[in-house]
Amino acid sequence: MSGRGEIDRLVTLLGRLPGLGPRSARRAALALLRQPHARMLPLAQAMEQAARAVRTCSTCGNLDTTDPCAICADPTRDAGLVCVVENVGDLWALERAGVHRGVYQVLGGTLSALSGIGPDDLNVQPLLDRIAQGGVREVILALGATVEGATTMHWLHERLARFDIKISRVGQGVPVGGALDVLDDGTLAAAIMARRPA
Amino acid sequence: MSGRGEIDRLVTLLGRLPGLGPRSARRAALALLRQPHARMLPLAQAMEQAARAVRTCSTCGNLDTTDPCAICADPTRDAGLVCVVENVGDLWALERAGVHRGVYQVLGGTLSALSGIGPDDLNVQPLLDRIAQGGVREVILALGATVEGATTMHWLHERLARFDIKISRVGQGVPVGGALDVLDDGTLAAAIMARRPA
Ligand SMILES: [Zn+2]
Ligand SMILES: [Zn+2]
Repeated sequence: MSGRGEIDRLVTLLGRLPGLGPRSARRAALALLRQPHARMLPLAQAMEQAARAVRTCSTCGNLDTTDPCAICADPTRDAGLVCVVENVGDLWALERAGVHRGVYQVLGGTLSALSGIGPDDLNVQPLLDRIAQGGVREVILALGATVEGATTMHWLHERLARFDIKISRVGQGVPVGGALDVLDDGTLAAAIMARRPA
Repeated sequence: MSGRGEIDRLVTLLGRLPGLGPRSARRAALALLRQPHARMLPLAQAMEQAARAVRTCSTCGNLDTTDPCAICADPTRDAGLVCVVENVGDLWALERAGVHRGVYQVLGGTLSALSGIGPDDLNVQPLLDRIAQGGVREVILALGATVEGATTMHWLHERLARFDIKISRVGQGVPVGGALDVLDDGTLAAAIMARRPA
């Protein structure tokens, strides 16, 4: 199978995407190769447009095509209620569930000695700035019920304690050891509703 | 999440790929969005190049960047030994296993009343042409052990019986009801080695 560099490269790059093993990468590549004009070029163009359009929101860390993102820019969202999540996938999960009417802060990770992620690696300064500027009434810590999530919530609680704001955390609903973005909408809704002081 | 059309479109198109559910499409999209220049643009460019380069081999039906494909053009392959497969994924599986030293004929499907695939829909004429031109010594029918595969092998056998060639079929190794391209290399090798007259 020499001389098919473009096809091999496509399979290789698709196989590096999370969630695609070698077999599903080959299946996806074949589906695209069978319809180069109807399927592959539109996807390639969608990727190029998304790559050029994507911005990291300097307020909250969300990924969107504008900065500030559509959530931060939405006047109907409660800017005084900030939900802290580990990553954009968790933010998307909460948005799909439609259970949070405030805004977000995306940390970009959780404290992890194992992964070498320390406080300086977390995107927390914009949250502190927003609180210092006033207008933040409550911070909801919506991190997974993992060791890293618990450590990060503890550390955040210490950093936020000096401010005159309410600090709560998602409680009921997040399974021990579980990640947030695999939960169904009802569980996420319950976790948000049942939040308690952190 | 209004105003992020490019991101929604990316998730939607990724979710249409076989093997990616909505969740893995979101994970893949996020991984790409996090590294637009290091990851998404290279994949987009690989897709564009593959879409422009891909050809269907007019001899065998394989997908490659040249026509005839690298296998048909390879003088070290035995052009007298033609392995008939359902689709390019099966051809790739046999090539990965490295068990077939001949060439191929890719049917592009199997006979299926349910799917409305009839004899005219199968890419079989190039095989008949090759046989009529002489030089084909043996045809190996390497179709899955499904009802459709068996029906197709029976039909092909009837069409090929009038030629003075050996017709065999992969035997031992293909599980009943099983598709070819999920088999391990050893099973594929055994199936090819244990081929018997059809
Ligand atoms: Zn934002
Ligand atoms: Zn060919």
